[in-house]
Amino acid sequence: MGKIYLVGIGPGKKQGMTLQALAALEECDLLAGYTGYIELVREQFPQKQLLATPMRQETERCRQALEQAAAGHTVAMVCSGDAGVYGMAGLVYELSIQFPPVEIEVVPGVTAACSGAALLGAPLAHDFAVISLSDLLTPWELIAQRLKAAASADFCICLYNPASKKRVDYLQRACDILLQYRSPENAAGIVRQIGREGESAQVMTLEALREMQVDMFTTVFVGNSQTKIQDGKLVTPRGYRNV
Amino acid sequence: MGKIYLVGIGPGKKQGMTLQALAALEECDLLAGYTGYIELVREQFPQKQLLATPMRQETERCRQALEQAAAGHTVAMVCSGDAGVYGMAGLVYELSIQFPPVEIEVVPGVTAACSGAALLGAPLAHDFAVISLSDLLTPWELIAQRLKAAASADFCICLYNPASKKRVDYLQRACDILLQYRSPENAAGIVRQIGREGESAQVMTLEALREMQVDMFTTVFVGNSQTKIQDGKLVTPRGYRNV
Repeated sequence: MGKIYLVGIGPGKKQGMTLQALAALEECDLLAGYTGYIELVREQFPQKQLLATPMRQETERCRQALEQAAAGHTVAMVCSGDAGVYGMAGLVYELSIQFPPVEIEVVPGVTAACSGAALLGAPLAHDFAVISLSDLLTPWELIAQRLKAAASADFCICLYNPASKKRVDYLQRACDILLQYRSPENAAGIVRQIGREGESAQVMTLEALREMQVDMFTTVFVGNSQTKIQDGKLVTPRGYRNV
Repeated sequence: MGKIYLVGIGPGKKQGMTLQALAALEECDLLAGYTGYIELVREQFPQKQLLATPMRQETERCRQALEQAAAGHTVAMVCSGDAGVYGMAGLVYELSIQFPPVEIEVVPGVTAACSGAALLGAPLAHDFAVISLSDLLTPWELIAQRLKAAASADFCICLYNPASKKRVDYLQRACDILLQYRSPENAAGIVRQIGREGESAQVMTLEALREMQVDMFTTVFVGNSQTKIQDGKLVTPRGYRNV
């Protein structure tokens, strides 16, 4: 029986990969995934056969990987960050019922909420919500409802996919919702290109966040009401009582 | 100037550590942290000096680490999972203003939300909320408000610290809140001792979750309304439209 590893490689560089992820990439005979992510790992595994597909063809990519696994191959599906957080794990499981049985193993990785938070200080040190602003597969009304829920219950918030070419004003719309519940001075931050060339981190107020131009390589953080900006870092206390 | 690395070592075994975390532990001359976590890594680094402190003395532990860093040492504070998710990162930043300047670097790791999810399938494949049920430093009213917010906005949910010796019925209380908004058939699951001896994962309904006895080594997962139980795995679709 073939096998698919769904491998979270962390933010990008080899340094951010776990030993378990490296072992899965070593074991496989076929590397699958979005071309951009394959590029991040192929240098270390030049001898592996590739099954690369362009962005936005996730379903086709997963089908091909399942086909190859059903034919007896050991396939490693390379995912950025963690394979289970907006990664391919859910989709591969969903599609797997259409194929002969294959073994599926998810190899977890460091998701952008954690790797980005590390660059900003400690923005997610208390309860937090992770929300994608992409409305490709989720109605905007539900995204808005989640932003309201997270803002009103004082969650720390991490936003994935804050913008794309077609969704230039989504972060602004999201901030307008958050500002109904939070102070304009609420601490916030953005990180770009985590663990890759051009990595940057920037701390600001929620009000200033609303005016930022972001792209699909940006991850956005909004602290809770207790989060402070301290020496250029976001610091969320571990509770609502004094240290 | 001394330095503190806040090192997320992932769930437990060496396999779950990133190369960056291993490098930080290698570089330091002093290993700090809760005794139980130090035990997980000291075998690999037998030559390092230890600064171990018992559970629940987090503030004292961080003070000692800052003192040593201020004296010129390179200290690695070992945290389970990710250092920024209910880890020591926030506390070290908070306390650092009381000490001479030291460099602080957070080395992110695989948090239990991700490592536990991997064992259950793909429960967090859409927007999710991470909530700790510990009311040591957070009023229960706020925890309850967050549970309501997450349940009503159809977030996938991951619960940390679902119980302790003094909080035996907290998971039950949490489930009662979730059941006000979710079906008793809502998919759920628990994992125990992730990445350690005795690791186990169990999939069930929300109704069944309410009756579970859990401990402080358990992480709890509740899917969203779309999450399915499929061949014993939790599978959350990546959106609200068909594949």
